[in-house]
Amino acid sequence: MPTQSEMKAIMQQYLDAFNAQDADAVIALYADNATVEDPVGSEPLQGKEAIDAFYQQVIPYGSKLKLVAPIRGSHSNSAAMAFVVESAVGSINVIDVMTFDESGKITSMRAYWGPEDSNSL
Amino acid sequence: MPTQSEMKAIMQQYLDAFNAQDADAVIALYADNATVEDPVGSEPLQGKEAIDAFYQQVIPYGSKLKLVAPIRGSHSNSAAMAFVVESAVGSINVIDVMTFDESGKITSMRAYWGPEDSNSL
Repeated sequence: MPTQSEMKAIMQQYLDAFNAQDADAVIALYADNATVEDPVGSEPLQGKEAIDAFYQQVIPYGSKLKLVAPIRGSHSNSAAMAFVVESAVGSINVIDVMTFDESGKITSMRAYWGPEDSNSL
Repeated sequence: MPTQSEMKAIMQQYLDAFNAQDADAVIALYADNATVEDPVGSEPLQGKEAIDAFYQQVIPYGSKLKLVAPIRGSHSNSAAMAFVVESAVGSINVIDVMTFDESGKITSMRAYWGPEDSNSL
């Protein structure tokens, strides 16, 4: 199991790579069999190919992910972070929950945001 | 399924009741068969009796839960919130994820905080 510091560092790398519009670096953080449910309540994406397609689509929009509080760990292989997605057309309030495998790869990401959590400019 | 506004209002009631040291009001927000995993990675409490015992123990400490960002909903029956637990002896950074039943009762609460997320004064 990765340490608390390792999980938080990986989530920070996720934010940094996303904000640098480096989709390949974001995708490299995921385990091969990972799942992404963004938003929670949608059909989860399964596996690297689907996750790759997702980030290759969303990252070019140029949105920036801005943490609003320190990343939280847990007493297991999970961690969570609250951030705002800021783009040219508005913002979305989000909390991501991630789980990690032994090698520190992300095995699941679930993004909590609802239809009322986005604000159009 | 409760609406986004209903889930967020229930989470706000949870914060307000906790901060008012009204354990009975907190417990009343839970469904009979609810689970509480606080922190994530600990053995989940199952059912109203265990949850009652938990809050009757922790609420008298007088800690205050302070939201650090707006509560996030989802596209299902889940919502999440980032807050700080402030007490006389220190603070803990936490993100709670909750699920709700049709009647708006909390069916699960998972609290993300790790051993490195608490700061002693």
